[in-house]
Amino acid sequence: MAGNTYGTIFKLTTFGESHGKAIGGIIDGCPAGLEIDFDAIQRDLDRRKPGQSKIVTQRKEPDTVDFLSGIFEEKTTGTPIGFQIVNTNQKSKDYGHIKDTYRPSHADYTYDKKYGNRDYRGGGRSSARETASRVVAGAIAKQFLKGITFHAFTSAVGDLSMDTPYQELDFNEIEKNDVRCADPAFAKACEEKIKVIKKQGDTIGGVITCVIQNVPIGLGEPVFDKLHAELGKAMLSINAVKGFEYGSGFEGAKMKGSDHNDYFNNDGTTKTNLSGGVQGGISNGMDIYFKVAFKPVATVMQKQETINAAGETVEMQGKGRHDPCVVPRAVPIVEAMAALVIADFVLRDKSVRL
Amino acid sequence: MAGNTYGTIFKLTTFGESHGKAIGGIIDGCPAGLEIDFDAIQRDLDRRKPGQSKIVTQRKEPDTVDFLSGIFEEKTTGTPIGFQIVNTNQKSKDYGHIKDTYRPSHADYTYDKKYGNRDYRGGGRSSARETASRVVAGAIAKQFLKGITFHAFTSAVGDLSMDTPYQELDFNEIEKNDVRCADPAFAKACEEKIKVIKKQGDTIGGVITCVIQNVPIGLGEPVFDKLHAELGKAMLSINAVKGFEYGSGFEGAKMKGSDHNDYFNNDGTTKTNLSGGVQGGISNGMDIYFKVAFKPVATVMQKQETINAAGETVEMQGKGRHDPCVVPRAVPIVEAMAALVIADFVLRDKSVRL
Amino acid sequence: MAGNTYGTIFKLTTFGESHGKAIGGIIDGCPAGLEIDFDAIQRDLDRRKPGQSKIVTQRKEPDTVDFLSGIFEEKTTGTPIGFQIVNTNQKSKDYGHIKDTYRPSHADYTYDKKYGNRDYRGGGRSSARETASRVVAGAIAKQFLKGITFHAFTSAVGDLSMDTPYQELDFNEIEKNDVRCADPAFAKACEEKIKVIKKQGDTIGGVITCVIQNVPIGLGEPVFDKLHAELGKAMLSINAVKGFEYGSGFEGAKMKGSDHNDYFNNDGTTKTNLSGGVQGGISNGMDIYFKVAFKPVATVMQKQETINAAGETVEMQGKGRHDPCVVPRAVPIVEAMAALVIADFVLRDKSVRL
Amino acid sequence: MAGNTYGTIFKLTTFGESHGKAIGGIIDGCPAGLEIDFDAIQRDLDRRKPGQSKIVTQRKEPDTVDFLSGIFEEKTTGTPIGFQIVNTNQKSKDYGHIKDTYRPSHADYTYDKKYGNRDYRGGGRSSARETASRVVAGAIAKQFLKGITFHAFTSAVGDLSMDTPYQELDFNEIEKNDVRCADPAFAKACEEKIKVIKKQGDTIGGVITCVIQNVPIGLGEPVFDKLHAELGKAMLSINAVKGFEYGSGFEGAKMKGSDHNDYFNNDGTTKTNLSGGVQGGISNGMDIYFKVAFKPVATVMQKQETINAAGETVEMQGKGRHDPCVVPRAVPIVEAMAALVIADFVLRDKSVRL
Repeated sequence: MAGNTYGTIFKLTTFGESHGKAIGGIIDGCPAGLEIDFDAIQRDLDRRKPGQSKIVTQRKEPDTVDFLSGIFEEKTTGTPIGFQIVNTNQKSKDYGHIKDTYRPSHADYTYDKKYGNRDYRGGGRSSARETASRVVAGAIAKQFLKGITFHAFTSAVGDLSMDTPYQELDFNEIEKNDVRCADPAFAKACEEKIKVIKKQGDTIGGVITCVIQNVPIGLGEPVFDKLHAELGKAMLSINAVKGFEYGSGFEGAKMKGSDHNDYFNNDGTTKTNLSGGVQGGISNGMDIYFKVAFKPVATVMQKQETINAAGETVEMQGKGRHDPCVVPRAVPIVEAMAALVIADFVLRDKSVRL
Repeated sequence: MAGNTYGTIFKLTTFGESHGKAIGGIIDGCPAGLEIDFDAIQRDLDRRKPGQSKIVTQRKEPDTVDFLSGIFEEKTTGTPIGFQIVNTNQKSKDYGHIKDTYRPSHADYTYDKKYGNRDYRGGGRSSARETASRVVAGAIAKQFLKGITFHAFTSAVGDLSMDTPYQELDFNEIEKNDVRCADPAFAKACEEKIKVIKKQGDTIGGVITCVIQNVPIGLGEPVFDKLHAELGKAMLSINAVKGFEYGSGFEGAKMKGSDHNDYFNNDGTTKTNLSGGVQGGISNGMDIYFKVAFKPVATVMQKQETINAAGETVEMQGKGRHDPCVVPRAVPIVEAMAALVIADFVLRDKSVRL
Repeated sequence: MAGNTYGTIFKLTTFGESHGKAIGGIIDGCPAGLEIDFDAIQRDLDRRKPGQSKIVTQRKEPDTVDFLSGIFEEKTTGTPIGFQIVNTNQKSKDYGHIKDTYRPSHADYTYDKKYGNRDYRGGGRSSARETASRVVAGAIAKQFLKGITFHAFTSAVGDLSMDTPYQELDFNEIEKNDVRCADPAFAKACEEKIKVIKKQGDTIGGVITCVIQNVPIGLGEPVFDKLHAELGKAMLSINAVKGFEYGSGFEGAKMKGSDHNDYFNNDGTTKTNLSGGVQGGISNGMDIYFKVAFKPVATVMQKQETINAAGETVEMQGKGRHDPCVVPRAVPIVEAMAALVIADFVLRDKSVRL
Repeated sequence: MAGNTYGTIFKLTTFGESHGKAIGGIIDGCPAGLEIDFDAIQRDLDRRKPGQSKIVTQRKEPDTVDFLSGIFEEKTTGTPIGFQIVNTNQKSKDYGHIKDTYRPSHADYTYDKKYGNRDYRGGGRSSARETASRVVAGAIAKQFLKGITFHAFTSAVGDLSMDTPYQELDFNEIEKNDVRCADPAFAKACEEKIKVIKKQGDTIGGVITCVIQNVPIGLGEPVFDKLHAELGKAMLSINAVKGFEYGSGFEGAKMKGSDHNDYFNNDGTTKTNLSGGVQGGISNGMDIYFKVAFKPVATVMQKQETINAAGETVEMQGKGRHDPCVVPRAVPIVEAMAALVIADFVLRDKSVRL
């Protein structure tokens, strides 16, 4: 109920604040007998971690995950997988100056009003640091989903947008540039843009596209838990996300039915895929693809006026080491959430027919 | 797990196929002591029902709801509210011709593959007829949420799009035209467009905007069950929806942080509202607004080639009385789902602090 | 949350008050492709219904179930199965005399305090009439669990108790007597006892034993959702139940470990079965057996003093047609709940290993 | 679904095996603003920990809990409370001898059959070590439930049974003896019995009675989630439990209605309390009391024949330091689970009426 759990059978519950002792979680419901590739998990964590390139925050955190249970002799046992990532950056620095200050477009104000008691060091629970736990669980979900591939990449930074159909992209390019885009030229342009923005002490939004391939037919539960509805929720639950569309998306709303319909080939595949791999909330075996919009980071390195808990106007200046654009580091988070969604539906689908 | 329940405390479970005996549901968790306005429920059903105007399907169904439990002497008792809407249109007509045919961009193929057993009369469970049950529950949720207002309206039909800020619209106009738009001139243009499309035997997509006002501060559970994530899921669970964005949405991804931040007034309200009333997944007391994209209806009144269960190419011709554009009838559904989301969060919020 | 749903994958949600229009429910999660034997369902309903013999209440209600969805051409489709049983006994009689009276050891007082609004006609929602919906769902669960057998029977009425090990009983005897006991002589004694009690205008408690056979190994989720813990909850949720024990039960608490341990045969079966078919919360393939204690019905046909809503002492006299002993009619309810528990665990078990 | 979570709003999810790195859990849904008394938590852990007296296992484990999140400046923040207890007793000893051996009346066989992969060191996940996490969460639940008291005590060891009504006992005596009984003379007798049993290398079962006082009226959700049904499930989920009864329990099944009914006083209290504080599944403000039966520990210090994974007969000899009787150490576990049940219902009750 308190919203810290994702999934129904393959379930992740996370805990932890940005400046507490540790963050972590419990994965409950991962099937027994899965061999775990620990290096692959760490690789995904490294793709998310701060300090990895010049266009992300320069904070240094190793983000090493420690598994406490549920894995024995490198295989899952079917019991809950407890894990933690110790917060090494948990300095005893003075947070007095922000204790009572509500940063604009952050969650300080709403947390205070909702809970009446807030861990004001950094973002506390509202910090995107929590997503490291999602990346751990998502990496395990991917291993469970062997054969299904998840490729997310940056498709827009600010007003720079890449419209090459994903079929024409080489996903191997994604990890070759700091922006995580499958198109090297576009990646270059984005990188330049982010550097300019950073120099201005400002931040910029962006869009991530995600493609899931080799999805079995039949995933998703119609009515309320449609496959794309769960994907949408999962994406919208990532910090800074403002929008989600799949298949033809908002463009599809402009079309006529006769143009929008995906006609069948005789093997059940479709000639076009404006449906985005989902029909009636259920996967049809075609590629699933969707877009996720991220707003610009709220912490800018500029002076801003805001209010404090007493309602007085105060001046604040963002300090520290923040991301000028979250999109490059959000790529593995999008993949992780997509993997959690698909893993849960794969398990849900097991009870559907005799 | 089977996905026919929405909500965690204020819960709706629906049942029913388009051509079965009845559709209906159980609302569990509606607080006791709520006086029920039955006319208001029927009014919302009437806004959704077929045959209400010239630009929607001409099928005739009275869609009268019958309450079976949970309401005593016109007040809720805290026990489950069972209700049904009898299917009067359940003719014993011959469905043999579509029994084995997979209509393009419908759920026929995916249901068959998932369940191996499908009620092939009309859309069965995948029919938007199911949403009538949502409208019933949403209407009760609205009554529970007295003071909070929900205004959805058509903001695009095909490539016709209205960009007037909602603050400048008169919501009283919405029910005065068949398209359900708050701008009479735009409504007129959309109506003309839909008529043309209908004459072509074609269909067209559209967009609905929804504005929720007088929302208390503090609704939404951060991390996975953020307020906007649940709204997104709820909207994406409506038949034909392809995208969701709130506040600045996809446009926000193009902006700089210094432009996107909503600066505070001294009373905690904000000068702008690009956040769309939600910060860190929690309502901040400002208006919540979002957009929902609907694809064009898949059933067109034109000849189409498709396949049957044996994988053979067959020709089919849409018949019957279908909507050329779902958006006008989807307006009350969007409102209903929004009300269900908010009602659930209002109840969830009761346990959050001492 | 409001407690009207049982199960996690094979789920039953019920609605309805004793004197409302109808009772019924939604079964969500029953796998697609199950052929339904409607007669078998009605047979179980008939075993529970009032008026079936001289030792139960003489109220007449046909208790005919009407399925509204989820079954097509006599097979389940995987969509929710909605059903209702119309209340034919819903006379417009005057309930004014009990409206404000709290009957002793009934739920009148607690419902009033909890909800502040109560359907005071008969027991309302607290009436055991609700269990008819459970019997419907349980009958379907039994059909899903083909091969697993459920045999419940009366093993005590008041201080009459039968201690014959169940292995020596002939379950075919159960339905041959009105008490539903597998031992004809004991059944006769119980019947006499109930008749005497009834003549006194009094009521009497009893015990039901239930044996589940041919259970696959591996059902149950350890830690909180142990197989016997769910069975216990399911039984304790039946009206009038005061206790539950399985295997050696309370007697086992008196034993030494060396006597209590069930030693293995080489095929994994055990020489004894004090474990009652469950070890570490998981079925081990041996028979599951347990006992359920029922208190005497609170409504006695004698004058009693009680209080009204104003806290004044008032005199009341039970009237109407009540059961002198609930145990004979509770036998199919115990079986139904046991079947719901096992069906849910069978489905849960499908996701446990690769 | 995998059964490692208890509760619906006040939720505990646990992880950890007896010989893994750590056990622990996440408490999600504890309201914000609760001041935490860490010493009280440790006191409850100390009541459960091994080595505390001569009649329990002589294993030494400090069982110190480490909180990782959710508590800030000694108050809860409403975010998940992550905690762990490091396993100090996690020696690299050789478990080869039990790796393939199924100990009688343990969970070795059923885990192996269910999961196909088992942490065979000690009991793994099926070890009662997991209950230390429950004690942590229960201690916090008790602090949340200030004013409501939970008193569990030993009321039987083997065939020694104490039938003094709890009203005549002095709960202050409980912690003054190693058996945790409120009657010093009876405690002495039990202690002697346990010592004799221990000398025999055997084990013995027992019964715990629990009394909950000052419970508000209205807790519990009728139908499936009755207050006593949840208490029953919670108790039956504790390792080694075989039975549960509340109020009049199995004795009540022998009584007549006219004797069993609890007649009202004018203030709504009842003259007797055979209902055990619960009517219709809802608390009525009277004391809640119930009994829990524990089987004798399966590990006896005697030679036993059993089988291995190949189905061969093998001889085994319990070694190590096991409890001759679990009841003394189970007292705080019973209290902890009772507190978790009540805490959850207190929060659930907040949404029940307008």
